[in-house]
Amino acid sequence: MNFNEQFDKLTKMVNNALDDYQGIDDGPGSNIYKAMKYSLMAGGKRLRPVLALAVCEMLGGDQEDVLPYACAIEMIHTYSLIHDDLPAMDNDDYRRGIPTNHKVFGEAMAILAGDALLNKAYELMLSYTLENDSRQREKIEAMRLIAESAGADGMIRGQVVDLESEKVTVSQETLELMHKCKTGALIKAPVLSSAILCGAREDEFEQLRIYAHSLGLAFQIKDDIMDVESSIEIMGKASGGDADSSKSTYVTLFGVEKARELLEEAVSAAVSALEGFGDKADFLREMALFVKNRNH
Amino acid sequence: MNFNEQFDKLTKMVNNALDDYQGIDDGPGSNIYKAMKYSLMAGGKRLRPVLALAVCEMLGGDQEDVLPYACAIEMIHTYSLIHDDLPAMDNDDYRRGIPTNHKVFGEAMAILAGDALLNKAYELMLSYTLENDSRQREKIEAMRLIAESAGADGMIRGQVVDLESEKVTVSQETLELMHKCKTGALIKAPVLSSAILCGAREDEFEQLRIYAHSLGLAFQIKDDIMDVESSIEIMGKASGGDADSSKSTYVTLFGVEKARELLEEAVSAAVSALEGFGDKADFLREMALFVKNRNH
Repeated sequence: MNFNEQFDKLTKMVNNALDDYQGIDDGPGSNIYKAMKYSLMAGGKRLRPVLALAVCEMLGGDQEDVLPYACAIEMIHTYSLIHDDLPAMDNDDYRRGIPTNHKVFGEAMAILAGDALLNKAYELMLSYTLENDSRQREKIEAMRLIAESAGADGMIRGQVVDLESEKVTVSQETLELMHKCKTGALIKAPVLSSAILCGAREDEFEQLRIYAHSLGLAFQIKDDIMDVESSIEIMGKASGGDADSSKSTYVTLFGVEKARELLEEAVSAAVSALEGFGDKADFLREMALFVKNRNH
Repeated sequence: MNFNEQFDKLTKMVNNALDDYQGIDDGPGSNIYKAMKYSLMAGGKRLRPVLALAVCEMLGGDQEDVLPYACAIEMIHTYSLIHDDLPAMDNDDYRRGIPTNHKVFGEAMAILAGDALLNKAYELMLSYTLENDSRQREKIEAMRLIAESAGADGMIRGQVVDLESEKVTVSQETLELMHKCKTGALIKAPVLSSAILCGAREDEFEQLRIYAHSLGLAFQIKDDIMDVESSIEIMGKASGGDADSSKSTYVTLFGVEKARELLEEAVSAAVSALEGFGDKADFLREMALFVKNRNH
């Protein structure tokens, strides 16, 4: 199976599981499920849960045992997008080509749908942990790592720094902190929680930590480069994304050329970190190249 | 110690713990902690965590062992108030006599502070569970019960029904479902999670389930009665709250007299449910009377 086939296989596994986890109900209040499902099933490559499953496969773990935690991370990711898109936040009307949650269900419902997805993530993990009592300690540790990654010291902190950085130029240090938290934390979470669940040795965990950190960095730099490139396409001038943007990015701070260099460095670091795993790490290595070469 | 002294003692225990759990940080993004703390420490009787501690005391459990879960429920309660107060929801400027979270920190930060408190609740419980490995299964079960109570089948469902019931008259059945979820779920959660953590027998659990259900109901009916009574005070006419309100309540559905009867019934049911616990249940019994007689 080549990289794309393997990626598709894992994406499908995640989509099937996410679909299964939905509550089915048509009584009063059941619209919350429609709103949750609308955003959760809106597509995407499922990068985060796929990472968790790929790490599990590499370590010889049982993917069925990782799936609930992987899907919980996707729920957390989805809730953060719903709230990010709200008028009081980024005020976006579209995501992945379809209207954002609040455009379809209204702002109040979108707030609650986000809350419900965040809560559902924990409910799902806790139910599975209660009903499958092998490696209980590892399961609790994985959940704690996910909670730390998602919260006020992780992703949410990144969102706050992002909020506070609008219309001001930030230092490289602050930019790095922002991305480490906002994007990085929820890329590290699936890699490392899966490592814990699958009983990774300490040295393996450390290698995966470096991999996940570098992959998250590459992901963000590539995002920043794509932003300016799409501005060039649309506006026909190279400075479009830079000059008009009120946000600090790797491109506004370093320029496109230097940003491309930093992207290469991050991808190399991700690939090198996996050396000790040999052939088994091929998919995760190609994942780093995928992140570098993607167009959207 | 009389009821009020005991209540104050437990409230203080909760406040001290909540204060201890705060992250201390002054780097970029640390405003999130200020926003979280602002609402979390805004006062109140801490009814929910106090219930958890009181149940623990009655069952002879260790209150230190229940405290993190009790405080997590208070965090969940607080996040729900922050989001409820948002312009897109109830659009309230004041709560407990001080400006609401979004009035002080802005809407975007208030959304994130709510998210962060919900997430922090789980982080806190999971950290404690990981570091204190007695009765692991009970701890996981308690967390799952809390997650179910807070989510799309519990509190959030109630919020959605509430949202959908604006400006329409709902059936008694829907009103009861709304309150069972919106208020009841987060009153049941501390009582029953504490019972699980303290190893309650099945029959004790069942009695506490009835107590918590009745207490939650009494709480809501009393709220509805106070709403109309404050309208009378302010507007000088008995129909004020009823006629002007666009929401269905026990008072709009049954009238004040019948609502008072239902309140008495609920309080009696709560008190009766505790018969089997003898004197040890005195505090919880008086709690039901406190809910009935409170003025705000």
